[in-house]
Amino acid sequence: MQRLCEPRSIAVVGASEDLGKFGGRVMHQLVRHGYPGVLYPINPNRDAVNGLRAFPSVSAVPAAPDAAIIAVPPGVLEATVADCVAGGVGVAIVITGNLGGVSVAGVPLERRIVDVARAGGMRLLGPNCLGVVNAPGRLAFSPSVTMAVDALPVGAVGIASQSGALMTAMFMRGHDAGVGFSTCISVGNQADLELADAFEHLVDDPATRAICLYVEGVKDLPRLRAAAERARAAGKPVVAVKAGRTGAGAAMARSHTGALAGAYETFAALAERLGIVLTDSAEAAVLCADALARHGAPKAEGLAVVSSSGGAAVLASDAVATERRLAVARLSAPTRDALAEMTDDPSAAAMIDFGGFRRPFVLGEIVRTLNLLADDPAVGAMVYVMTPQPLMDEIAEAIAALEARGVPVAMVSTAGSVARTAHAALRARGIPVHTGMDDALRVLRALFDHRRSRESDRAGAAVAVDAAAVAAATRGLGPGLLTEPEAERLLAAAGVPFAAGRLVGDLDGALAAARDIGYPVVLKAVARGLVHKSDAGAVSVGIADEGALCEAFAAVAEAMAHNVPDAVLDGYLVREMVVDAVAEVFVGARHDPAHGPVILVGLGGVLVEVLRDVAVIAAPASPAAIRARLETLATWPLLDGARGRPRADVDALAEIASRVSAALVAAGPRLRELDVNPVLVRASGAVAVDARAVWETSEERR
Amino acid sequence: MQRLCEPRSIAVVGASEDLGKFGGRVMHQLVRHGYPGVLYPINPNRDAVNGLRAFPSVSAVPAAPDAAIIAVPPGVLEATVADCVAGGVGVAIVITGNLGGVSVAGVPLERRIVDVARAGGMRLLGPNCLGVVNAPGRLAFSPSVTMAVDALPVGAVGIASQSGALMTAMFMRGHDAGVGFSTCISVGNQADLELADAFEHLVDDPATRAICLYVEGVKDLPRLRAAAERARAAGKPVVAVKAGRTGAGAAMARSHTGALAGAYETFAALAERLGIVLTDSAEAAVLCADALARHGAPKAEGLAVVSSSGGAAVLASDAVATERRLAVARLSAPTRDALAEMTDDPSAAAMIDFGGFRRPFVLGEIVRTLNLLADDPAVGAMVYVMTPQPLMDEIAEAIAALEARGVPVAMVSTAGSVARTAHAALRARGIPVHTGMDDALRVLRALFDHRRSRESDRAGAAVAVDAAAVAAATRGLGPGLLTEPEAERLLAAAGVPFAAGRLVGDLDGALAAARDIGYPVVLKAVARGLVHKSDAGAVSVGIADEGALCEAFAAVAEAMAHNVPDAVLDGYLVREMVVDAVAEVFVGARHDPAHGPVILVGLGGVLVEVLRDVAVIAAPASPAAIRARLETLATWPLLDGARGRPRADVDALAEIASRVSAALVAAGPRLRELDVNPVLVRASGAVAVDARAVWETSEERR
Repeated sequence: MQRLCEPRSIAVVGASEDLGKFGGRVMHQLVRHGYPGVLYPINPNRDAVNGLRAFPSVSAVPAAPDAAIIAVPPGVLEATVADCVAGGVGVAIVITGNLGGVSVAGVPLERRIVDVARAGGMRLLGPNCLGVVNAPGRLAFSPSVTMAVDALPVGAVGIASQSGALMTAMFMRGHDAGVGFSTCISVGNQADLELADAFEHLVDDPATRAICLYVEGVKDLPRLRAAAERARAAGKPVVAVKAGRTGAGAAMARSHTGALAGAYETFAALAERLGIVLTDSAEAAVLCADALARHGAPKAEGLAVVSSSGGAAVLASDAVATERRLAVARLSAPTRDALAEMTDDPSAAAMIDFGGFRRPFVLGEIVRTLNLLADDPAVGAMVYVMTPQPLMDEIAEAIAALEARGVPVAMVSTAGSVARTAHAALRARGIPVHTGMDDALRVLRALFDHRRSRESDRAGAAVAVDAAAVAAATRGLGPGLLTEPEAERLLAAAGVPFAAGRLVGDLDGALAAARDIGYPVVLKAVARGLVHKSDAGAVSVGIADEGALCEAFAAVAEAMAHNVPDAVLDGYLVREMVVDAVAEVFVGARHDPAHGPVILVGLGGVLVEVLRDVAVIAAPASPAAIRARLETLATWPLLDGARGRPRADVDALAEIASRVSAALVAAGPRLRELDVNPVLVRASGAVAVDARAVWETSEERR
Repeated sequence: MQRLCEPRSIAVVGASEDLGKFGGRVMHQLVRHGYPGVLYPINPNRDAVNGLRAFPSVSAVPAAPDAAIIAVPPGVLEATVADCVAGGVGVAIVITGNLGGVSVAGVPLERRIVDVARAGGMRLLGPNCLGVVNAPGRLAFSPSVTMAVDALPVGAVGIASQSGALMTAMFMRGHDAGVGFSTCISVGNQADLELADAFEHLVDDPATRAICLYVEGVKDLPRLRAAAERARAAGKPVVAVKAGRTGAGAAMARSHTGALAGAYETFAALAERLGIVLTDSAEAAVLCADALARHGAPKAEGLAVVSSSGGAAVLASDAVATERRLAVARLSAPTRDALAEMTDDPSAAAMIDFGGFRRPFVLGEIVRTLNLLADDPAVGAMVYVMTPQPLMDEIAEAIAALEARGVPVAMVSTAGSVARTAHAALRARGIPVHTGMDDALRVLRALFDHRRSRESDRAGAAVAVDAAAVAAATRGLGPGLLTEPEAERLLAAAGVPFAAGRLVGDLDGALAAARDIGYPVVLKAVARGLVHKSDAGAVSVGIADEGALCEAFAAVAEAMAHNVPDAVLDGYLVREMVVDAVAEVFVGARHDPAHGPVILVGLGGVLVEVLRDVAVIAAPASPAAIRARLETLATWPLLDGARGRPRADVDALAEIASRVSAALVAAGPRLRELDVNPVLVRASGAVAVDARAVWETSEERR
């Protein structure tokens, strides 16, 4: 990556002076932006290009170039790559795209060029990428039209992108907003070098102080994780945009509820664990990274909303209030007292409309108010909405002064071209101007999400479980769906409390068990591979006494014989029937093949599936982290005593979920799924009453 | 309004040549933008301003000016208004703001200037407004800094705004995007002329083809309604932004559920009924209105998502898929066949990535594809996401050609300043370029919402109810909370079916009633003013037989005597207990003081309050309109047979809700609230089992 991003010499294949052609454009921009290394134009038909001596092939270059850039047609790509290897090139950027369908002698072309490169000790970036831009290094190592900008904007934001077009879009948004870059890397199809390589490079790059990732899929989870952890340790915030936010559910779904942890949700859980901030627009990710590079985590959780227009202030407050992840600060008494000198009855909420001041549009009062807000201990960041108005240049100065003091301000201007000079002044100071609330909200969410992710560093580890006991409980398990007692054994080894239960062989055993446990009870037939217990009539609930148990036993036995005659019965499970539950909660756990272990927690029953209101959390997870996520659910009030209902013991639930998460990790990836459904949460305490698990399937073993 | 928006002569109070002052700026911009009428500078210290003869006062002007503009300090405002009256001014724009606290001899200044104006037959716009801009009339009748634009952009969008700053922000967004305006009116504090006046003017103004409203509060509902209906009849789409989207619940809430119909929700219901499209950004509202002015309703419900970048196409598809109100079109077979000539295995969904074409970036194929999509019967509009790439100017031409053919295209460009010429070309053709998906989605939602609102023209009227019977049922009602039988009588008069019930006086009567009705039954004590029936122990459910009824009767009687000893008992209600309900639904009805009659429909129980997932619909409402709104609820699957549950008879539910809406309207605004809670919906049929109503309170009568 070093030779790619800071090459001492570059071979440009197809170099010319024709700006209509790839090689011509690349040569031109490398030279124009002042690339300080040695350039080798490669062109068999020319002696010189741009006044530099040209070579007929890379292998004809006297000294081995650090890097080469190639955009030849697929037909000659393999030979060109081989020529680079022959020339001793360290790393080649392959711009050429659409190799997907092309193969030579049955081997896909993409595979062949990697083989050729690897055999010769050369690395490849691409194919189907847009290269690298290292702004401080004056390296415009890309054929993108965006290299036509006057100057590469130098700054602190690094980009690693699985889309070349989005890398250039991010670059332009930053350029136009006054945001500077360190190094931007487009990894294309990742035939060889991949996103994690680029990410690692940016973590190590001293010029990079915040990192933007555009992710379509994770190729190497451990490396991504390690890079993120190093970034966190180095204090470099990371902002990611993950493609496939929707329609992703199907992949993971074996059981119904599994469908809730689609690829996006598990990535989000991973990102939250790693302290990576997620946003949903690639261009805005650059603005988020810029704000994080400049400010890091805000000093407090609260936001101040400020405008000179009452209407704009109202709409901005509406927009902020609909964001669950943003909270308007409550001002301290000294701040309010000071504001009362300028406005009647200042509200406790940090929402300021200068139009409502006794003397509107007095610059001194505007500046004073901004400073009061910045100094208030509850205010972590501000959003200023500027409509077309007097004093726009002066307000821009005031905002720039605040930013220079380290106060994060999301500056929104709806003044458009009449505020040209104010906007230019802010851009020149590296302060982006948003044209509406949307990107401002993204930046503010990123700032506060980053703050929360740093707080959660201190949220502690998962409940410690006896990993050896869990491992012991997995010994001898056969592939496929486990029986309830097997799943219970595994969970019990991790300390998950279950409602009292006993596996019995016959009615007498059931009666004895029920006597010990106490009525009412539940009776279930236990048989290997019985997927839909209730549908098969294998479950009878609400058994109030011995007579009812006799009847239920007969009914269940008959239903099993009738509905699943081939089932091999392990026996009957008699379980205490919990009647004082406040809430019924689903706790699931999965090893996601792409994004690692996660747990899923949400209100059980039909609601979880209809509303898709589930917390997906990377495993293992601490009770505090689980509780914090549960508090963000739409259905949280149902746990928290909505409308006079008793409050559920969420701490007990969180401890169970934490133990489940630890059990999943302790059992390892052979445990594909583990569901505790439901956990019945009482006003005090919580117990599992059913469990379901899938051990690796036999096909996967082969 | 005509004299205000198309004045033949204008008096500018405080006119000068000093651009640092209000009167100087207004004079300068009126002259510079070519105002064709007669200007009267008013300045006692000058003989001439801008080469025009100046007058010492408005009353000194020889001919009565149509309009005047005033921005004097509050201290001389009343005298200045009086001077305008004396001069025979037709209408005066009062820019001066912050009159709120100012009063003279105990009468608020705002009231006094209106009185002075009215007495002299003059109308006022403002105070605290930013005047009027009539672009085709070359009238820059505003002190706003935005009048510094080179030329007033002439076009089809009219604005009526309760915020001057937002009017100017909207004006600038349009100006910078290539959108032209007819007349923009800022009504300020609406001391005299108000939003409805401006709205009516725009409806009648031939230059206006689409209307933007910024609304903080509705002052005169009947006029707003009438203007909206005339706009609809005239085929002029209306886009509104309503302030106070959040924190608005408290106002309306007497009962808990009432809190769900906050001011925003009832405004939204009203807007939906009137065919007004809502959006949440003032600036974007201009872009929405522009698209509607140019295209009206799209020809089909489906959207096509197009990009030259795979990454951008994925993110755009994600953004579209999270919008419940947008649907990607399913392409017809001929379109897919034609696409198959250019790309492998084209998907049925209209999502195109030119980067995935066999020959990427071939202009002819791009243009051909765009035309194929435009011609597909399922495609009503397109979104094109352009990243920095080759052929940007050519793509801009292709988009302009599509728009010229009448195909609505939301053009998103993330190419920034490297696409300067492409953007300028689009702007010159009046085609806005969005810098991200946010505003593009707002425009697309507006187009498709407008389409749906036109479709719903045909959704029919509410179920016809016997208004005389309803009125008869209200006769003699006392103020306050009605008893359940009173509320039932009212609803029954409107044809709302109730579970069988009978009001009885004693246990014998109850036993006889239960015999007729059939067990199980519910028993409730009926007493005037008993608000919390269940809390008082006045309700007993699940009474299975005579013995249980005797016990329940004794318990209810004792509870009433103990808990509410002062209650005056009307008797006991024995009601059939419905045991085969599929869903429990809340149907409420309210006369909202600001926005008129509405009904609220949502799943009952604790969910409705926790999730706030309620359909608020203007009353009266047709069953079809109610059903369509219910289908948009998050909890809709619970009515629609989620997870193997039986499907609820939503048609029966919608008919009941329609009858409730008609009953509310027939009973008139003295019926403040009417709740049927719950309606129990069976797999076939639905019945009300409880009702609650509030007749006007005695305080209101006074």
